Amino acid sequence: MNKNDFAPLPPMGWNSYDYYDTTVDEAHVRANADYMAAHLKEYGWEYVVVDIQWYARGAGSMRSQYQYIPYSHLEMDEYSRLLPDPERFPSSVNGAGFRPLSDYIHSLGLKFGIHIMRGIPRQAAHAHTPIKYEQSGTGALLAWKYEQSITGALSARKYDGSSSTAKTIDGTAVTAADIADPSSICGWNPDMYGVRDCAEGQAYYDSLMELYASWGVDYIKCDDICNTNIYPHNPYSGRHEIEMLARAIQRCGRPIVLSLSPGPALIEQANHYKTHANLWRITDDLWDRWSDILQMFARCELWQDHVERGCYPDCDMLPLGRIGGGFGEGQERSTNLTHDEQRTLMTLWCIFGSPLMLGAEMTKLDAWTLSLLTNRDILSMRTPECRPRQLFRTADAAAWTACNEKTGDRYVAIFNLSDKERTVSAADPELYQAAGAAVPSAQSYTELWTGQEYVSPSAVLPPHGCCAFRAAR
Amino acid sequence: MNKNDFAPLPPMGWNSYDYYDTTVDEAHVRANADYMAAHLKEYGWEYVVVDIQWYARGAGSMRSQYQYIPYSHLEMDEYSRLLPDPERFPSSVNGAGFRPLSDYIHSLGLKFGIHIMRGIPRQAAHAHTPIKYEQSGTGALLAWKYEQSITGALSARKYDGSSSTAKTIDGTAVTAADIADPSSICGWNPDMYGVRDCAEGQAYYDSLMELYASWGVDYIKCDDICNTNIYPHNPYSGRHEIEMLARAIQRCGRPIVLSLSPGPALIEQANHYKTHANLWRITDDLWDRWSDILQMFARCELWQDHVERGCYPDCDMLPLGRIGGGFGEGQERSTNLTHDEQRTLMTLWCIFGSPLMLGAEMTKLDAWTLSLLTNRDILSMRTPECRPRQLFRTADAAAWTACNEKTGDRYVAIFNLSDKERTVSAADPELYQAAGAAVPSAQSYTELWTGQEYVSPSAVLPPHGCCAFRAAR
Amino acid sequence: MNKNDFAPLPPMGWNSYDYYDTTVDEAHVRANADYMAAHLKEYGWEYVVVDIQWYARGAGSMRSQYQYIPYSHLEMDEYSRLLPDPERFPSSVNGAGFRPLSDYIHSLGLKFGIHIMRGIPRQAAHAHTPIKYEQSGTGALLAWKYEQSITGALSARKYDGSSSTAKTIDGTAVTAADIADPSSICGWNPDMYGVRDCAEGQAYYDSLMELYASWGVDYIKCDDICNTNIYPHNPYSGRHEIEMLARAIQRCGRPIVLSLSPGPALIEQANHYKTHANLWRITDDLWDRWSDILQMFARCELWQDHVERGCYPDCDMLPLGRIGGGFGEGQERSTNLTHDEQRTLMTLWCIFGSPLMLGAEMTKLDAWTLSLLTNRDILSMRTPECRPRQLFRTADAAAWTACNEKTGDRYVAIFNLSDKERTVSAADPELYQAAGAAVPSAQSYTELWTGQEYVSPSAVLPPHGCCAFRAAR
Amino acid sequence: MNKNDFAPLPPMGWNSYDYYDTTVDEAHVRANADYMAAHLKEYGWEYVVVDIQWYARGAGSMRSQYQYIPYSHLEMDEYSRLLPDPERFPSSVNGAGFRPLSDYIHSLGLKFGIHIMRGIPRQAAHAHTPIKYEQSGTGALLAWKYEQSITGALSARKYDGSSSTAKTIDGTAVTAADIADPSSICGWNPDMYGVRDCAEGQAYYDSLMELYASWGVDYIKCDDICNTNIYPHNPYSGRHEIEMLARAIQRCGRPIVLSLSPGPALIEQANHYKTHANLWRITDDLWDRWSDILQMFARCELWQDHVERGCYPDCDMLPLGRIGGGFGEGQERSTNLTHDEQRTLMTLWCIFGSPLMLGAEMTKLDAWTLSLLTNRDILSMRTPECRPRQLFRTADAAAWTACNEKTGDRYVAIFNLSDKERTVSAADPELYQAAGAAVPSAQSYTELWTGQEYVSPSAVLPPHGCCAFRAAR
Repeated sequence: MNKNDFAPLPPMGWNSYDYYDTTVDEAHVRANADYMAAHLKEYGWEYVVVDIQWYARGAGSMRSQYQYIPYSHLEMDEYSRLLPDPERFPSSVNGAGFRPLSDYIHSLGLKFGIHIMRGIPRQAAHAHTPIKYEQSGTGALLAWKYEQSITGALSARKYDGSSSTAKTIDGTAVTAADIADPSSICGWNPDMYGVRDCAEGQAYYDSLMELYASWGVDYIKCDDICNTNIYPHNPYSGRHEIEMLARAIQRCGRPIVLSLSPGPALIEQANHYKTHANLWRITDDLWDRWSDILQMFARCELWQDHVERGCYPDCDMLPLGRIGGGFGEGQERSTNLTHDEQRTLMTLWCIFGSPLMLGAEMTKLDAWTLSLLTNRDILSMRTPECRPRQLFRTADAAAWTACNEKTGDRYVAIFNLSDKERTVSAADPELYQAAGAAVPSAQSYTELWTGQEYVSPSAVLPPHGCCAFRAAR
Repeated sequence: MNKNDFAPLPPMGWNSYDYYDTTVDEAHVRANADYMAAHLKEYGWEYVVVDIQWYARGAGSMRSQYQYIPYSHLEMDEYSRLLPDPERFPSSVNGAGFRPLSDYIHSLGLKFGIHIMRGIPRQAAHAHTPIKYEQSGTGALLAWKYEQSITGALSARKYDGSSSTAKTIDGTAVTAADIADPSSICGWNPDMYGVRDCAEGQAYYDSLMELYASWGVDYIKCDDICNTNIYPHNPYSGRHEIEMLARAIQRCGRPIVLSLSPGPALIEQANHYKTHANLWRITDDLWDRWSDILQMFARCELWQDHVERGCYPDCDMLPLGRIGGGFGEGQERSTNLTHDEQRTLMTLWCIFGSPLMLGAEMTKLDAWTLSLLTNRDILSMRTPECRPRQLFRTADAAAWTACNEKTGDRYVAIFNLSDKERTVSAADPELYQAAGAAVPSAQSYTELWTGQEYVSPSAVLPPHGCCAFRAAR
Repeated sequence: MNKNDFAPLPPMGWNSYDYYDTTVDEAHVRANADYMAAHLKEYGWEYVVVDIQWYARGAGSMRSQYQYIPYSHLEMDEYSRLLPDPERFPSSVNGAGFRPLSDYIHSLGLKFGIHIMRGIPRQAAHAHTPIKYEQSGTGALLAWKYEQSITGALSARKYDGSSSTAKTIDGTAVTAADIADPSSICGWNPDMYGVRDCAEGQAYYDSLMELYASWGVDYIKCDDICNTNIYPHNPYSGRHEIEMLARAIQRCGRPIVLSLSPGPALIEQANHYKTHANLWRITDDLWDRWSDILQMFARCELWQDHVERGCYPDCDMLPLGRIGGGFGEGQERSTNLTHDEQRTLMTLWCIFGSPLMLGAEMTKLDAWTLSLLTNRDILSMRTPECRPRQLFRTADAAAWTACNEKTGDRYVAIFNLSDKERTVSAADPELYQAAGAAVPSAQSYTELWTGQEYVSPSAVLPPHGCCAFRAAR
Repeated sequence: MNKNDFAPLPPMGWNSYDYYDTTVDEAHVRANADYMAAHLKEYGWEYVVVDIQWYARGAGSMRSQYQYIPYSHLEMDEYSRLLPDPERFPSSVNGAGFRPLSDYIHSLGLKFGIHIMRGIPRQAAHAHTPIKYEQSGTGALLAWKYEQSITGALSARKYDGSSSTAKTIDGTAVTAADIADPSSICGWNPDMYGVRDCAEGQAYYDSLMELYASWGVDYIKCDDICNTNIYPHNPYSGRHEIEMLARAIQRCGRPIVLSLSPGPALIEQANHYKTHANLWRITDDLWDRWSDILQMFARCELWQDHVERGCYPDCDMLPLGRIGGGFGEGQERSTNLTHDEQRTLMTLWCIFGSPLMLGAEMTKLDAWTLSLLTNRDILSMRTPECRPRQLFRTADAAAWTACNEKTGDRYVAIFNLSDKERTVSAADPELYQAAGAAVPSAQSYTELWTGQEYVSPSAVLPPHGCCAFRAAR
């Protein structure tokens, strides 16, 4: 399997976090899936992703004190693998896991995704529960070791028997305690220990993907791995776990899209992300603040040369519509972004080629927000054929261009980043030359949000506003 | 002018530094140009570049104590612009500057380049010598300011009258003292002060390019600007001077290739380099040590997505053949790289698409070195149509691929980075898939250094050795 | 109680670590105590300190793989307090804890110390075991809170009900899970979580000191607290736990000496160490390497102004005699320090005023080592009345002076830090003036290791050698 | 000479900077000296210090653009030594230098100080002007080298002929160009280059002190040397120049007090400061803002163990009374500190033992400010016999104590650091014990600003206010 085939376009979907935090349950997921199937699927929206702590009993019940209750009970199978909390996901009982929910979502013509934390549960390590590990001479791991020794490839750090720290002692089972690294933790979530870089650790990840494949999972958002930001001196300490995850996906036989969080991703690891993952978050959590949108312009400039088929720098979820419902008393709100800011967000995300993961509770979507999500012209800029190019960026304004190599369509977006109305122009041919982009020499330009025609890609823009043009042929 | 047209291929040429240090003179340059015209031009070698301190009287005369003699006399014209040292460049007298030498080189069908330091001579600032600056209302600078205000573009930092620190007082001439920033210095060379970010500073750079264009300069290597490494907290303090240089080149009317040094370039500024320059050094000074070649593999991985037409990450000069002649007693030597290491160097530089600037004294070139420089198959990998892709890199081995989009030629290079003979293979299709590259499915592979045929891109390689394959169609 | 009265002189004693690592048992401790009582007590040696993991079952049994076995069973009482491993400390059974061993040591006229790790056992947090916590209105904690609000003192960070994260819910018991911070871990030992800064956390430390006082503990070496070096951006993250420990000692009613590890201590926290502790380690672990001794000269210079009664910068244990016995096969050895280096070590530690904690297995002490430990003249420099002053330090040599304010005795030590024999002199009066020290104008100087007389404090010294002089009155 | 005898008490005086910036002239200095002699001398105020750029022609004439005009003419003698600007200091003409002004100040019973910048004028280096340097075999430098080789002392970095970079070539004079380091500059002032670490560099500093001694200078404030803050990775790059300065003072035969700026001084260099200097700035420039006063409490805590006879951590000048006069249009003002803040400043500076350098224009002093400066009780705390001890410091309050070892007087100061009225108490004996200070058990406490009696050292304090108590015997 070629992982770049798993997501030929930047994924579009819905994620439970922005509205539900840790409180999402099966009914919420089904209701949102129903809405997507009915109203958004035809525009390309397809992933339904259950975000953090679906395995944690009582998640969200002490929200004023903890976002993630430490040392709480996590639902787990006999191989130290987390299972859905049966109270919130009743269809998961009797070993069914997420399979029934996944089946339902697939029945709607949609795809199913889950969030996981890097590592193995701390509770498993302290309880010395087993992991699924077969040591037979013809098993997958030995084959893997063989491959590795021949190609010398895929990974800069290979399994080496002598450095392995996980040992099977006297024929007894390998347990979570053998592969859990007690000093590899997440700075903001107490659930897991990192997995050591050894064959038994790989076997654990293999067993996870085997389980998820059996559930029909199509998309995994793995957290605490893109930037393990508790260790400022070692922000890429999860490097070997990224490789283990990618390898386990290849072995499981199912084309599972791999998304890495949290950001900001490390630009000097761009090649590593591209080799092993489909999406990687290039920003800290993004919320409905203009400052969050504004800083994304610099991040998109930084990552613009790394948008390719199957490889998507990720600008994070869309905090649009109704959000914050599960974040505690008084947190539910409509997005704080203005209409102009929302168009700016959608325009930048689309011309840049970011994945689009809606954060809103979809059953509460208003007409305006729906219109943002269903503009086929804007969404059509989202293809690897449209290699994005920033034309310029100052404190006050920015412009981007993209040319669809297949269709020949040329796009130009102009943005007013300042707090005042101002004229922004991307008409100067030198801008395109300096950016290595084709110079548009069109007689007219169609603005894709309004349908208006312009004679050049320039306009008077409101504060934080934008125009997105398609040049006439 | 589109700066990306100035260098449609990664530049190839000769640079005086590796052999002459600061001691190069006119006779040396002519002799090397003669050799290039006679023996290398037909293979694409064309630039003849005079490196550092061509303007410094007595340069190299105190080499045991200083590489660059502080406070020494620098040859300078009436507008604070440096001129060739007439003792070393006798044809430059009477205001001719580098024009006669340039004419000679052009007469050979070659191109002429010079090295400059960022900034304006300290001696000019302390002597308060004038700069060329016209304040007429229809002058270039006012026009520039007008352009800037309209487009809001090209530069994140624009001229703003209120923040300008260079002032013309009471109609008197603007001098070097007005634009030289006394706290902007180079950490390793004492010649210059940085130029302030103001219209008068731009005028100085304009006057430089006007002069260089009049000399027929085709290529400028500007130093202390790509990474102003004296300031670890502010390594890109020359940002505005990069922009000024690029703008001055546009204005001078001559397509002068712009090369920035020293490295390592800052990956987070990739877009800025690409917008304003043609080459930028991605490494510290590279010499004839295996460790220097080895670290280049990581740097090429880092920069591989930024090789485009007119935009070339630069792996630095080729320390091949006879080098070190001007570095003091006992420094002249033949390169310390083994034959295998030299092929590895050439192969990596070429498949990556780096510029090639030979450091050797060409009149002393031996047959082996000449053969390295004249392998048309190897050199043919150097085109932006061949977008480079690293397939893998471990401590022991690496592989790259490139596919010429025009011709369809597919290249694979394998490298043994270890100190022992070992088999290295790039035969696994998954490697190509993960790298987003076309999978070669050829029946045979021609090794470009030896002409031998292989059935797959794998081989037993000597320590530090390589193979460069072209797949059969 | 005034904590500065607990240790009017820098403590002298024995610590089990350098010989036993984690394997020390009751018999070892008793044997060493017997030796100390018989041979060293009369010279001031009095503390017998049991170092790390006395509570861990099977400690040292997987030494080739782990120094500290993760997730292993830790002996613990009903209040989440660690107890001695009954296999290694048989007298501790039936709730006796360290009391029997302590009684034995006290019966010899010696003092008893233990090592602890900052925090509360991870196993307690994951098992939700209770802590000892009384909420009665007249209890110690309320009184404490009252005191704090009045004085606003002792601690820069005070208990504030609103920020407390440990809560008693509905009258149920407070457990380890309530006070254990899941993101506060030790980078090199997997046993504990840090304790949160709240009243219940204070109660836990109070309960610890109550227990230790009941055992008769005289000295606590608390680890992972002086420099919590897993967090390079926050090396003093245990600040509030230092304060809690100090407060708990005051409350327990027993004058327990408090020693903080590991080093290097943070010079900018000097006042905080002095306010709350008796000893703090100013170096990483020191072993029997000359480089370790050499670097101590710079550290002593750094800390010389902070040696006061009850406040001792700690140069770490003395790796003399037989060491390494518990560190695995083939690790037992006699110290690698030469005789000259050993005298240099003892001289520097003593004139600086460091605590002296012997690392050797005492039952194996040879005559030479014994002579180092029983030189009354050298030991007599170790008093806060002898404020240490470095006279000079170069790459090759150093000199220190100290003047006993009570007796008027003046000491000068000279050190040859180089690898060659050389003359070192501290005869120049300007050295003393510049150091703010009394100028010795004696007619003769007695060298304290040899008894020889000198006319001035200068001598030809062997490599790494020293002289320690007392000036004649 | 013992440098610690030069300043047996923390110096008190006036400095021209806070009022005059670079514009101070002879008349200003004389007028302030007259005032000091008439009104302040009897309280201990004695130094009159001329601050920065007394040597710069036209200093202050382009204030809106530059604080320090780059490349402006600096008055200089034939040995590259700066001289007073004759326009502002008319008595300095004909080679008199500061001698006439110094004589006048001495005639008033006061002492005379000047500010200098580390290094040698850039204009001297670029002009290759000579330095005073005698190479005779019996000269001072040879003697110095001899001393150094014997004692191996005073300096960690010694002169070593082989590493010297300043050379006398063919019997010609040594010039500024030989000793000026072109890469050692000040980040905020363009006048100087640092001096290289060599014998000729020492000779230059010797010639400076010889000149200053001939002028009768009593006090030197050397700038850009305590923390050469342009180089965040090397903030103590002036280390060898501090040693050269100290050595030159010893040689000049005049007891010149040495004060080092700017701050913040480096705590890890405390011993080096104490060995070579009398004062060193522990803060950035301090102005009349409460935030500046507030941060000084932490700095005083940090440095409290380093206040000794002849060694004074320096809290910077007192921005009281009328200040800002020379800083440009509209800058002259009365201090922005409230009366309570001013008392807090004076109390902290005095109980800590800081030097006191008044920044006000004294001829404009009002009665309130004068009363602050002439409170003998407050000033009497300023003696090395009063070793300062912080008792506690929280976000809201702080307390200090000091006990005069000679007189037995005990002082306690309490401070309200918050913005609200609050009770602050330093009555708890444990505070004194923890700080290693004598516990005051007095029956009454005299408040030194008001003369009121208190029963304990506690009071209700206004925002930013303080009380300074002396305990009854």
